[in-house]
Amino acid sequence: MAQSSRVESRGEFAIALIHYPVYNRKGEICTTSVVNVDIHDLSRLGRTYGAIRFYVVTPLEAQRELVLKLMRHWTEGYGARFNPSRAEALLLVEVKPGLDDCVEHLESITGARPYICVTGAGLKDDVVSYEEMKEMLKRGKAPFLLVFGTGWGLADEVVRKAHYRLAPVEGVKGFNHLSVRCAAAIILDRLFK
Amino acid sequence: MAQSSRVESRGEFAIALIHYPVYNRKGEICTTSVVNVDIHDLSRLGRTYGAIRFYVVTPLEAQRELVLKLMRHWTEGYGARFNPSRAEALLLVEVKPGLDDCVEHLESITGARPYICVTGAGLKDDVVSYEEMKEMLKRGKAPFLLVFGTGWGLADEVVRKAHYRLAPVEGVKGFNHLSVRCAAAIILDRLFK
Repeated sequence: MAQSSRVESRGEFAIALIHYPVYNRKGEICTTSVVNVDIHDLSRLGRTYGAIRFYVVTPLEAQRELVLKLMRHWTEGYGARFNPSRAEALLLVEVKPGLDDCVEHLESITGARPYICVTGAGLKDDVVSYEEMKEMLKRGKAPFLLVFGTGWGLADEVVRKAHYRLAPVEGVKGFNHLSVRCAAAIILDRLFK
Repeated sequence: MAQSSRVESRGEFAIALIHYPVYNRKGEICTTSVVNVDIHDLSRLGRTYGAIRFYVVTPLEAQRELVLKLMRHWTEGYGARFNPSRAEALLLVEVKPGLDDCVEHLESITGARPYICVTGAGLKDDVVSYEEMKEMLKRGKAPFLLVFGTGWGLADEVVRKAHYRLAPVEGVKGFNHLSVRCAAAIILDRLFK
């Protein structure tokens, strides 16, 4: 009954940017710093393509506080008047300590357990194509949570937890080192335009 | 003769990021500051999709010097060893004072006068679609110069000079405020993937 009443939710999705656990350039697990420009770019991007939330994920409380401060600056008072589209985009942001918290939150607002789909330039095995993922998004009754890494990419433990692994964005000359901002833009455009 | 010997150049293109003349949020002509993350993101993007140059355009000598300093840092010595893919991407960059200098330079290295194609979220009249632009790129014997603005967009004088105006990236919810990094990523993927 809950399921059939949620037909309108088809194609619903959220995005998450993970700062832990990810790899550093030596292949060690690390926590990356939150980068302001990532927050602005991905919230605008999410807003443009209809994401219902943009989760900024870090276990460091001081970093979560920083993101909330940035959000307050731009969504209240002078900041909101100065640049209203920035405010509108940042209202998508939720700050969470871990991926599990995002899954729970997304389930609480949509009423359905989300499918987790990870992205990454290094994914090779069992990847789904953009066409397959588009089909699933159309058919899917549960929301999708598209997960992006920082640093040198999502740790294996996150990749293993996912329901789906999206094929990497491939360029034309064998060079595959896009910023997460550019990769996320390309991926959302391919899936949701 | 020169033309027929250049059949291999079909689809050749470069990108340019313009810091003057662009609009500020009041609609006045201004010069924006060069932003490091734009240089890194667009050089990686250009390298990924096969651009032959990425022109960083500003009339301010001190700003051009800064870009050259950043390039030297990452393409020589320790910086190049620390992050080789960053070096490889930055080798695409040429720093120029104005758009005309880019056109001249691109002509000098390709042997053909480039077509200028401007982009912008606010373009409305006489825009070409992505399908039309892809067709032109396939047929074209001359290189294309894809021009991106900063601030609140390219000044009309630049738009009027262009041979083509590319349709804006439209989201799904009437929100159209992407960063130039994300917009450029989407546009290159649509045209060159």
